[in-house]
Amino acid sequence: MRAAVIDDDVPASVEDALARYLAQRRADLVARAPAFADAVDALTGFVLGGGKRIRPTFAWWGWRGAGGAAGGERAAVVLRTISALELLQACALVHDDLMDASAVRRGSPTVHVAFADTHRTKQWLGDPDRFGMAAAVLIGDLALAWAEDMFAGVDGARPPAGAREAWQAMRSEVLAGQFLDVLVQATGDESAGAALAVAQMKTAAYTVERPLHLGAALAGADERTLAAVRRFGADVGVAFQLRDDLLGVFGDTRATGKPAGDDLREGKRTLLVALGLQLAERAGRGADAAMLRAALGDADLAPPAIERIRDVLTGVGAVDAVERRIEALTGSAVTALTEARLAEPAASRLAELAVAASRRDR
Amino acid sequence: MRAAVIDDDVPASVEDALARYLAQRRADLVARAPAFADAVDALTGFVLGGGKRIRPTFAWWGWRGAGGAAGGERAAVVLRTISALELLQACALVHDDLMDASAVRRGSPTVHVAFADTHRTKQWLGDPDRFGMAAAVLIGDLALAWAEDMFAGVDGARPPAGAREAWQAMRSEVLAGQFLDVLVQATGDESAGAALAVAQMKTAAYTVERPLHLGAALAGADERTLAAVRRFGADVGVAFQLRDDLLGVFGDTRATGKPAGDDLREGKRTLLVALGLQLAERAGRGADAAMLRAALGDADLAPPAIERIRDVLTGVGAVDAVERRIEALTGSAVTALTEARLAEPAASRLAELAVAASRRDR
Repeated sequence: MRAAVIDDDVPASVEDALARYLAQRRADLVARAPAFADAVDALTGFVLGGGKRIRPTFAWWGWRGAGGAAGGERAAVVLRTISALELLQACALVHDDLMDASAVRRGSPTVHVAFADTHRTKQWLGDPDRFGMAAAVLIGDLALAWAEDMFAGVDGARPPAGAREAWQAMRSEVLAGQFLDVLVQATGDESAGAALAVAQMKTAAYTVERPLHLGAALAGADERTLAAVRRFGADVGVAFQLRDDLLGVFGDTRATGKPAGDDLREGKRTLLVALGLQLAERAGRGADAAMLRAALGDADLAPPAIERIRDVLTGVGAVDAVERRIEALTGSAVTALTEARLAEPAASRLAELAVAASRRDR
Repeated sequence: MRAAVIDDDVPASVEDALARYLAQRRADLVARAPAFADAVDALTGFVLGGGKRIRPTFAWWGWRGAGGAAGGERAAVVLRTISALELLQACALVHDDLMDASAVRRGSPTVHVAFADTHRTKQWLGDPDRFGMAAAVLIGDLALAWAEDMFAGVDGARPPAGAREAWQAMRSEVLAGQFLDVLVQATGDESAGAALAVAQMKTAAYTVERPLHLGAALAGADERTLAAVRRFGADVGVAFQLRDDLLGVFGDTRATGKPAGDDLREGKRTLLVALGLQLAERAGRGADAAMLRAALGDADLAPPAIERIRDVLTGVGAVDAVERRIEALTGSAVTALTEARLAEPAASRLAELAVAASRRDR
């Protein structure tokens, strides 16, 4: 990879690093275990088949902003190290799709569905769905194990202690966030606090704060800088999730690629919904609160009902409240970014990413 | 841990290291995510709740045999590093129980069953079994992530490159072995080759060969020694699995703690079964082969039918063939152990473990 090329297209550079790494692992392993090729190829197809590479992109700008080189040998090692974030994300998505029983991801069958289909087509023994589940569990585990290997690197190219600290915290946080999310759905916790805690751990820490922390730590940033980029990341990350929540109810299907109101049908406990319930109750609009409550998790929710929910969320002021929260988070993020005194072009790119995350329509 | 104490009771030393590590991780995390305590406690209970600690025990004797110290600071670091094998095993078991839909492990409900029960008792929202599955997926993932953290250690105590090589190979091999196992059950592959490949990767590499490799690499063993301990481990590991296969059909329930014939009911494709089918066909005993084939995976298989299967397996010579194979593997293992020229007491302990693995009755 020539110098400065990574800055120009971080996602493509990450994909290149992943393609090389996965090809090498496949070559090492498949000779000894040819039947495992199907699993490795499924993982490779999944990892290289799409994604915005948002986590390594934040990590890259954390590295560059804290003074890391744009090119050369050290930059190539850092690129490999942070590309491991995409393997971690592959584990999260493959296991999430299984837990949510999702059938489609990026226009293709999810891993558990694809393997169940193969089982059915080939008329194998036993239950196809059980086979699909086993394949998804194992392929997710493989993604996690290889993420660790890719991150750990080899002697002479090992990440410094500070970077491992960020990596370690991130993995516990995302699992805690996912567990909390499952628990909140199960208990029907309607509090804004629970919704925010999930957004902070499952999205903000995992998607923005810790990747930035990781990148800056790889460059040996001092404590003050690390604290500032983490504040920036935490705020941008929550703003990102809140925008996601709004799009999940109000988004244009043509832009988001997801059916309108899917978040409601899945019964997601978002801050938008928590505030909607709270504000409706407070305004004495008990019937509206009841309607919203009944809609959550109703798999058959039809467009007219979604339209009514939208009116309630807007009418009680929940949409405004979330928009104001996004604005405040974006503002405090920009302040933190200034305090971090990052090098250019990273500072500008991160400011753009912050604005894009809070204003996007998909 | 005082010098020489670890040698006297490796399993207790491993449990001590695990208890300390898990308590520390819990303290770090639960303050930020109190709702995650249930998941952390479930994992801790699982890890500390039982197990023979066989993998760290082999790793410890690999370390000692290649000249590693019995006590002192370096030995304490090595003990922590190899105790990570038990967290890896926790991931494998929690996910395995989910994939196999097993309800009981070590006399307690499996993780997915326990969380589904909680959901049912508390009358939470949604499907209890789906909640149990999500909890088991996430708790297994947490075990794997923490295994990586515990193995990676901290700066100044990081395992050397050779140890990471063993660790890395082992994790890919066990996942490949598990995937192969699932695939062999699904396709109904009756070949001895497939059964042996599963035994080599899922059991031998993961349980004996790579733990020994890891321990010896931690002590900086040379290539000749590493090759010899790996040969020893591969042979002992396969012998261990073949003994397990015999116990799965012929074992005394009072000793094994498992219902007699469970391997047949689960449809396990063992070398014993593969040879049974092969030898029955070759001897023109087609009816016996058909009976054996029909029994595999029959969840309602009754004791009289199990008795008939035992007679067939003995009658066609499959039991003798497996016993001879165990004997040959134990013999070649002992030869490899001699060639490894390990230090005492490791050499004697490993010889004892090899004999115990091949002759045990549970």
